[in-house]
Amino acid sequence: MLPHDLLITNATLLATPADGHVQEASYLAVQEGTIVEIGTMADLPPRPAAARAIDAAGNLLLPGLVNCHCHGAMTLFRGLADDLPLMTWLNEHIFPSEARLVDAEMVYWCSKLAAAEMLMGGTTTVADAYFHEDAAAQAFCATGLRAVAAQGIIDFPAPGVPDPTQNIAAAAEFLATWQGKNSLLTPALFCHSPYTCSPDTLQRAKALAREAGSLFFIHLAETREEGRQIKEQHGHTPVGLLHDLGLLDAETICVHCVWLDEEDIGLLRESGAKAVTCPESNMKLGSGIAPLAALRGAGVRVGLGTDGCASNNDLDLFQEMGICARLHKIAAHGPSHLPATTLLGMATGEGSGILGLTGQTGRLAPGLRADCIIVESKQPHPNAVHNPERLVYAGRGSDVSTVIIDGRVVMEERRLLSFDLAETLNEVRRLARRVRAGT
Amino acid sequence: MLPHDLLITNATLLATPADGHVQEASYLAVQEGTIVEIGTMADLPPRPAAARAIDAAGNLLLPGLVNCHCHGAMTLFRGLADDLPLMTWLNEHIFPSEARLVDAEMVYWCSKLAAAEMLMGGTTTVADAYFHEDAAAQAFCATGLRAVAAQGIIDFPAPGVPDPTQNIAAAAEFLATWQGKNSLLTPALFCHSPYTCSPDTLQRAKALAREAGSLFFIHLAETREEGRQIKEQHGHTPVGLLHDLGLLDAETICVHCVWLDEEDIGLLRESGAKAVTCPESNMKLGSGIAPLAALRGAGVRVGLGTDGCASNNDLDLFQEMGICARLHKIAAHGPSHLPATTLLGMATGEGSGILGLTGQTGRLAPGLRADCIIVESKQPHPNAVHNPERLVYAGRGSDVSTVIIDGRVVMEERRLLSFDLAETLNEVRRLARRVRAGT
Ligand SMILES: [Zn+2]
Ligand SMILES: [Zn+2]
Repeated sequence: MLPHDLLITNATLLATPADGHVQEASYLAVQEGTIVEIGTMADLPPRPAAARAIDAAGNLLLPGLVNCHCHGAMTLFRGLADDLPLMTWLNEHIFPSEARLVDAEMVYWCSKLAAAEMLMGGTTTVADAYFHEDAAAQAFCATGLRAVAAQGIIDFPAPGVPDPTQNIAAAAEFLATWQGKNSLLTPALFCHSPYTCSPDTLQRAKALAREAGSLFFIHLAETREEGRQIKEQHGHTPVGLLHDLGLLDAETICVHCVWLDEEDIGLLRESGAKAVTCPESNMKLGSGIAPLAALRGAGVRVGLGTDGCASNNDLDLFQEMGICARLHKIAAHGPSHLPATTLLGMATGEGSGILGLTGQTGRLAPGLRADCIIVESKQPHPNAVHNPERLVYAGRGSDVSTVIIDGRVVMEERRLLSFDLAETLNEVRRLARRVRAGT
Repeated sequence: MLPHDLLITNATLLATPADGHVQEASYLAVQEGTIVEIGTMADLPPRPAAARAIDAAGNLLLPGLVNCHCHGAMTLFRGLADDLPLMTWLNEHIFPSEARLVDAEMVYWCSKLAAAEMLMGGTTTVADAYFHEDAAAQAFCATGLRAVAAQGIIDFPAPGVPDPTQNIAAAAEFLATWQGKNSLLTPALFCHSPYTCSPDTLQRAKALAREAGSLFFIHLAETREEGRQIKEQHGHTPVGLLHDLGLLDAETICVHCVWLDEEDIGLLRESGAKAVTCPESNMKLGSGIAPLAALRGAGVRVGLGTDGCASNNDLDLFQEMGICARLHKIAAHGPSHLPATTLLGMATGEGSGILGLTGQTGRLAPGLRADCIIVESKQPHPNAVHNPERLVYAGRGSDVSTVIIDGRVVMEERRLLSFDLAETLNEVRRLARRVRAGT
């Protein structure tokens, strides 16, 4: 027998987080990036020493988390203009800063910083969406993070696409560049919203996505005001408009889905379209509370996303799980509402399903790629704990000690191994001085 | 000139967090536990080297946080029976576990674990309330945490007080033991609630508190059901009942204050009574959203508390600030509602005022005791940041690198210096096995 490439031993294994089932004293073996064996230590066959061995004694081993919506490069705008009304924040701060500062270099370094934060917080897959997404894709590949990278499309002059009539062409070029290029990177498309993209743009973008077999992301039904505006202009709800334009199918991912009526939920269910909820962003911007129970009850698949740093303001999916669970308990006045295991499922298997990665990541099982994280229990706050629900209610990204993606150890004992974090921090600090100089 | 006992240099100083004003390149000097000088590096007078020097270059220096409500020993019950309806959780899990497992030894070790978590999360003052509070007070003194420790009073057989007719006598003994004993420890009283303490008990407890010059804490108006029950039994709202019994004054601290009417808020304002909000606990238990804007608008002082670990499930005041701000923004559908600086104020100066410690802690100024924390910016997620609001929206306890209480360095570079954390973890793990054995 050959030695394994990587062997993790003595772990408390949470292989499928949605079921909350924990298996003590487990091992997990990896060959060429794929999980080849999982079992209990008692059954570990004698074998030559693995090329790399990690003793996870006393710690929890689970699949890496899946962030279904993010604008990584917006790490540069974290903390810029907090606590302002949405339109003031957007029109007077975020849009002008983006116009002035977003270029390929900025997107590269700030996406890399986002990747660092996500990796160090136990996120192993992200669905990112921004302008200059080519630079974001390069950044993710340089960090070892698994990513679905979606090129932004909007009917205004945008960073990298000064002429909006070229937005679909630019997106097509992005898809052509990245399809099949890197096994960790899946290119996709992102229409900003139904109020910044015309029906024609939406339809041409979705046609391109269909032709390329790509996912199509869109911000949808985020605010009450958006609903009013779309109704007035198009006579439909935002979801109704997408349905009317023929854009809803199983490869369409609707981000936010806060303001939905019953008919909207029916349209999402029938079409197989997916939803992503970003509760921290919706709370911070005061947008509203997504009807998760109704969506999930109807069978719509719902992933969890952090959204961008400017409205969150972090990329910590552990905190996002905890806040999401608490928000829906208080909204429903019921502590049993949206239990912790549901959140764990949304942040792992359900998220990977939404991104079309079920065969690769989202749980730990032989045949899947080895995307896993080790959560330590040497700190005070994870003690004394009685079940994996603690990950939701008392967990935070900084509890993650080790991160493995595609069989590669990208973080060990909280040291990033896959790239130079100090260099990235320096570059982002340099860019941040330009933000301050302009305000 | 004599050397300072402690000198912190090159700090980005946030001396009074409520005003959000940051002073770059600052120093802070400590003599015998008191802040004696604050200034900019350019003005630092030549002087013999300090006995202890800390270079805070690039990092934020601010007052330690004040947790206005906690049951430290409940760290043992963290993660026990999550996601259950309130009464099932309380009657079938928490109360039986408390009856079986709470003794002085348990309270000592589990309060020590709570102190570790709080210290490592930047909390330098806690208002704790539990049974066997004598053991909790010993634990806090052993860790260097500043504490207001309140002995629990309830009209049932309780740990340490099997005969409820002795509950006031036990509380009196607790006050007598601890008054004037340790400058970091202030003893106080805690009546569990108006539904577990009779009017007679409440009045006798408050009389004892007045006689001793002590603070009087009580859980009040936490759930809608409590309001119904008190109305039925006493013909008053919970706040109205306390007013009717003559218990409301400036040394009465009402914890939760979720279900208040306008008249209740008027009674709190007129009496000078204080409020404490525990949003994470209220969310997790689905209790409701406290009317913070109305309370604060009326001039009632409101502190921030984590509540106990069984309902939170952590003791991280940074997370509590972030969740509190987001919750009230979404409740009011307004992103400008409850801005970050308000939260920073509640978690520092307003909290210390509520606990009667304004002359000692809550901001950084000459003459106050040196309770301060250093928040580092070497991690990815605090970058790039543009203002102290980041502490609320992107901060977490684990960003705190160094903690100083009463001039003593209790944590440095995330290593606890004031006591043996490994010993505490081992003791709590031993006790946790008894929890599991009984379920
Ligand atoms: Zn977004
Ligand atoms: Zn409490």
